Amino acid sequence: MNAEEWVDLEQLMFVEEPLDPDEPRVHPAWLPPEAFRTLGARRVLVHGDGLLVDTVLDEVSRACARYGGRVWHNPSWDVDVDLVLALRGAGELPGPAVEAARAGAGDGTLGTEGFLLTHAGPVTVVLADAPAGLLYGLFHVVRLCAAAFDPTRPPERHRPALRRRMLNHWDNVAVHPVMGQVERGYSGGSIFWQDGRSRRDLARIREYGRLLAASGVNAITVNNVNVARTEALLLTDRLGDVAEIADVLRPYGIRVHLSVTFAAPMVLGGLSTADPLDEKVRGWWAETTRNVYDRVPDFGGYVVKADSEGQPGPFTYGRDHADGANLLADALAPHGGVVHWRAFVYNHHQDWRDRSTDRARAAYDHFAALDGRFRINVILQVKYGPVDFQTREPVSPVIAAMPATRLAVELQVTQEYTGQQRHICHLGPWWSEVLRFAPWGPGGRSVADVVAGAAGAGGGLVAVANTGDDRFWTGHPLAQANLYSFGRLAWNPELDPTAVLDEWMTLTFPPSATADPALVRRTLHEIMDDSWRTYERYTAPLGVGFMVNPDGHYGPGVDGYEYSRWGTYHFADRDGVGVDRSRASGTGFAGQYPPYWAEVYETPETCPDELLLFFHHVPYRHVLRSGSTVIQHIYDTHFAGVEEVAAMRRRWQTLNGMIDPAVYERVAERLDEQVRSATEWRDQINTYFFRKSGVPDERGRRIH
Amino acid sequence: MNAEEWVDLEQLMFVEEPLDPDEPRVHPAWLPPEAFRTLGARRVLVHGDGLLVDTVLDEVSRACARYGGRVWHNPSWDVDVDLVLALRGAGELPGPAVEAARAGAGDGTLGTEGFLLTHAGPVTVVLADAPAGLLYGLFHVVRLCAAAFDPTRPPERHRPALRRRMLNHWDNVAVHPVMGQVERGYSGGSIFWQDGRSRRDLARIREYGRLLAASGVNAITVNNVNVARTEALLLTDRLGDVAEIADVLRPYGIRVHLSVTFAAPMVLGGLSTADPLDEKVRGWWAETTRNVYDRVPDFGGYVVKADSEGQPGPFTYGRDHADGANLLADALAPHGGVVHWRAFVYNHHQDWRDRSTDRARAAYDHFAALDGRFRINVILQVKYGPVDFQTREPVSPVIAAMPATRLAVELQVTQEYTGQQRHICHLGPWWSEVLRFAPWGPGGRSVADVVAGAAGAGGGLVAVANTGDDRFWTGHPLAQANLYSFGRLAWNPELDPTAVLDEWMTLTFPPSATADPALVRRTLHEIMDDSWRTYERYTAPLGVGFMVNPDGHYGPGVDGYEYSRWGTYHFADRDGVGVDRSRASGTGFAGQYPPYWAEVYETPETCPDELLLFFHHVPYRHVLRSGSTVIQHIYDTHFAGVEEVAAMRRRWQTLNGMIDPAVYERVAERLDEQVRSATEWRDQINTYFFRKSGVPDERGRRIH
Repeated sequence: MNAEEWVDLEQLMFVEEPLDPDEPRVHPAWLPPEAFRTLGARRVLVHGDGLLVDTVLDEVSRACARYGGRVWHNPSWDVDVDLVLALRGAGELPGPAVEAARAGAGDGTLGTEGFLLTHAGPVTVVLADAPAGLLYGLFHVVRLCAAAFDPTRPPERHRPALRRRMLNHWDNVAVHPVMGQVERGYSGGSIFWQDGRSRRDLARIREYGRLLAASGVNAITVNNVNVARTEALLLTDRLGDVAEIADVLRPYGIRVHLSVTFAAPMVLGGLSTADPLDEKVRGWWAETTRNVYDRVPDFGGYVVKADSEGQPGPFTYGRDHADGANLLADALAPHGGVVHWRAFVYNHHQDWRDRSTDRARAAYDHFAALDGRFRINVILQVKYGPVDFQTREPVSPVIAAMPATRLAVELQVTQEYTGQQRHICHLGPWWSEVLRFAPWGPGGRSVADVVAGAAGAGGGLVAVANTGDDRFWTGHPLAQANLYSFGRLAWNPELDPTAVLDEWMTLTFPPSATADPALVRRTLHEIMDDSWRTYERYTAPLGVGFMVNPDGHYGPGVDGYEYSRWGTYHFADRDGVGVDRSRASGTGFAGQYPPYWAEVYETPETCPDELLLFFHHVPYRHVLRSGSTVIQHIYDTHFAGVEEVAAMRRRWQTLNGMIDPAVYERVAERLDEQVRSATEWRDQINTYFFRKSGVPDERGRRIH
Repeated sequence: MNAEEWVDLEQLMFVEEPLDPDEPRVHPAWLPPEAFRTLGARRVLVHGDGLLVDTVLDEVSRACARYGGRVWHNPSWDVDVDLVLALRGAGELPGPAVEAARAGAGDGTLGTEGFLLTHAGPVTVVLADAPAGLLYGLFHVVRLCAAAFDPTRPPERHRPALRRRMLNHWDNVAVHPVMGQVERGYSGGSIFWQDGRSRRDLARIREYGRLLAASGVNAITVNNVNVARTEALLLTDRLGDVAEIADVLRPYGIRVHLSVTFAAPMVLGGLSTADPLDEKVRGWWAETTRNVYDRVPDFGGYVVKADSEGQPGPFTYGRDHADGANLLADALAPHGGVVHWRAFVYNHHQDWRDRSTDRARAAYDHFAALDGRFRINVILQVKYGPVDFQTREPVSPVIAAMPATRLAVELQVTQEYTGQQRHICHLGPWWSEVLRFAPWGPGGRSVADVVAGAAGAGGGLVAVANTGDDRFWTGHPLAQANLYSFGRLAWNPELDPTAVLDEWMTLTFPPSATADPALVRRTLHEIMDDSWRTYERYTAPLGVGFMVNPDGHYGPGVDGYEYSRWGTYHFADRDGVGVDRSRASGTGFAGQYPPYWAEVYETPETCPDELLLFFHHVPYRHVLRSGSTVIQHIYDTHFAGVEEVAAMRRRWQTLNGMIDPAVYERVAERLDEQVRSATEWRDQINTYFFRKSGVPDERGRRIH
């Protein structure tokens, strides 16, 4: 017996260590008490009423109790304060707020989530038109620290560019025999579920909501898009568990959505069909949805993965995805809910021998023709790339193809293909590139514009969460930055991702007795800023993707998918590598883009280097736009990538003694693994291509 | 998310269908009632007493009750009979037995398991010196059918060539999180254990013992060589479960052995060490073993996998494997038990970049120098090949290297690497080649001679079982033939494997109203006789091995092990393929053989084609002894292999209506899968080598 599966076992056993009872139960992430020091030393007036205003008041009161400040809530007399947080339209505004408003800075509506930060003489003023805005304003003050109290700071208006900023939890209620408690989760168990039941750790869920609100997230799903038997029941029998979570998250402005199975009318309702045009089916969904809103009045809506990877869907009944999505949309419409309908539909039993089928084409081929057929409360949720969350993909052509449909773009905060929170891979720069990408060509509207929509009517941004019951929330402590960056970029896609990272560092690593905060931040920037590109360097080259171990998606497996049914191939042979997706000679995928990009991607000469092998099959000695050959580029980037990881580790070691020892140790361990794994990537990929191409490294380095 | 693991799930779900309550609970395999028709119509006298004589009597009585014959047991008067089954030395023999003995045919001892089949006039006589011999004689009569009653048939003496004919069950008591209830089991659950407990399905265990006895097996282990916590307890707290199984198997002459963990003194005994030279450890084993024999007086002994794939062993204490094995041998010696010590020890964390380490060398390197140091009741259990149960390997050089050690050879009846009982792969011819192989060169002693030993003192033959709680015992009904063939070849390694297969067919597919038995047998021979070579043709070529999917060992994965830690590589590049194990330029493994084979294997010119890539790295255009090139051989055999499987399926279809419909359907389903899987093997391997070599198929067939 050769026990290859023991490897899996070791992976199963790569779990978080038990908590030391002397340590704090959970790491505070970007909201440590110290982050509230500046605020907590001030005199603060909170004006307004309501659930979220109470949250603001609680936050301020806690901070002031710790750091010696003082709080007033709706005082009926004049008080001398440093900060006013005021809800407009809630009775007579306090003096400084009136003064600020009078200065004209608050003209125009701020919307349900926006706020104004300004000053009235020495007093800092936050104004909002709705309670959520006040909460976001509070966290903005926390983020700014002392700068918020600088009276010379010009007034700022903040409104989220995207109305919907959602996290999808791929958490299972019952442990899946293969996928476990959290599918593609690398941070321990689920915050919500354990072994088939609700965990009911409401304090932790509340803490989670607080972190999310401080990053800007305002919606979550609490269960996996792959909906199995137990999870299906959340919609009906187990609705109480959902309502409880919603109750806990509501004070932080976070709405709960549910992933549902399209087969629910049969699985739960006992009907003989789930046909979207069947009246009984429509009635069942209407009734069921009404019950959901009876329990959760601000319920967000449904998320659906249909006709995909074995999940049921409208195709079973000869209906299309507009029929399917509209069925649920009609049930949700009376209550103000939306359906997020995933565009991730493809043939997952492809024959690798069949060169005519191209998985990259699938979402466009399935959905583009349906543009205009979706109800207004359908949001089509499109992965950022045409395949599957690879480290580098072109932006999905669907995004430019459906002007009459509300589109959301889906990202992965969980690092399924980017090192699974054992590798440092800061994704902000990648997401920023995606959001700034202009599908119609330079100067045109961006992806962010599309998902923002006119007057905020777009579908927004969605990401698969990277959080779990791990004490650091995210397994790798530095992976917290990805979660934070997601929320911030969803709020404002124009933010500089490195500036967002700096915000996160400032909050997470506050000044301490043992450390120079500037030095800590500089070191962290050196480690993290370019870490996504470093990860790209030592993994699959030039956009080719899917050279990952099929068993768990961790580590290299150059040919791991080459003969599989998943439609993800690189076609490397002794002469060259890459997928011809041109119109002229390939699968035609390049033609799914608007003309500008269709032309750019069509030929190897115009295609950007980093996507060359995604779009073209080229000889190993093909000369890149960079001047290097493909094969030499592969060698060079892989040697460089490992050197960069080694440098990361050396830099991290300089922080020993300067930060929380538990954080230090966890990261140090994972950096050891990252060095090992990156070396394995380098050697396997270089060896693979050397054996195939026979071309030696120009610099004569060791290739096995 | 791309759910590669759903594949695993599908594999998990490849379970046997629930039993139809109208069907017999379990298939009778090679002992259907009809196999006893000839015997059961006769008048039979059984002479002798004892547990195994009672078994003989039961068998005969059941047969006679069904088919109209008659039985006498130790009659004190003369009876007119057709068959006498008599134990010598048990009182006065019946007349025909005396007559047969007088004719001289019974001279000399028959040993504890031998028997004599002869005739006294019209009466068939079976004589034995011990009860087990009488039982084996009975099954011989059953096998012979009418021929046994042919008075002109010359007398036959039968004694097993190998004293020890053992099956190892890799059954877990508790379900292993990765390996399941039965490690490398493809026949449902365990016959013995379920979900952490003894199943206590004693009727089925008895039926199993009966089948084994009729094939010639006389020993089994009831638990996996990988011994986890629950399984360790079989030695102590759960010994009652073992005793119960032993009680049920004893009437069929089968002794029970246990797999134990070397760490038992710590795990079970609470000692702080398991050092084999520690007196407390020695005392613990002596005491524990005494307790085992108190409960199971004919207990066989221990099987140990030590210092291998994570199992504990003597290396931990700076001791060697002789120290380890002798520790257990000393504990067993007072009771007549033996320890089977597995030679499967290698570095399972090898670095693929390190060309100096060769897993094939490991068993010899670890054990050869220990020859002569083992106690007389240690049996060193050596896998037939130097690596791991591949479809084709050279015979292990350890077999010729340890003349002063009792050696057993270990085979796999379970088809871990040979199609997992979804593929028809009749292994008898392969085992026969191994057993007939002459390690010192043609004309010298054979492997069978080594494991037989002088005067039967050898270690015998051991195989990993292929049985489970499946209704056909073995998942694939035709895989029963492998189990049967193992027992028969262990009894007599000189048997023609095709003749053994014919015995199995004759018993298993008795004449029926709807079938011409000769036609059924001829068809089955066409399907099965060469099926191992067919399997070899469409899988890894020319002895290179391990082109299997690492995840479960089913289906192709040409590079699946190429960069892994398991030490099983093929080193294919654009110029050639294979592992250089020569002394001159390779790992030197070829030099572990006695001179004749060391020379033969040393050069590509003298190395047999079927092992060429095991011993040599050669260019794709290297010309084989067959006259074909390596690359053309790969193409030709892979196309041929799939054609042969398609022919198997066509032939099987001609049997529809002629055999048990349940057997027909099960095999038909699996043949569909075999055709699919063989096609996948062909296409992946041909494509892989075409892409690497660039050499087109001479015959212009389609390669993808």
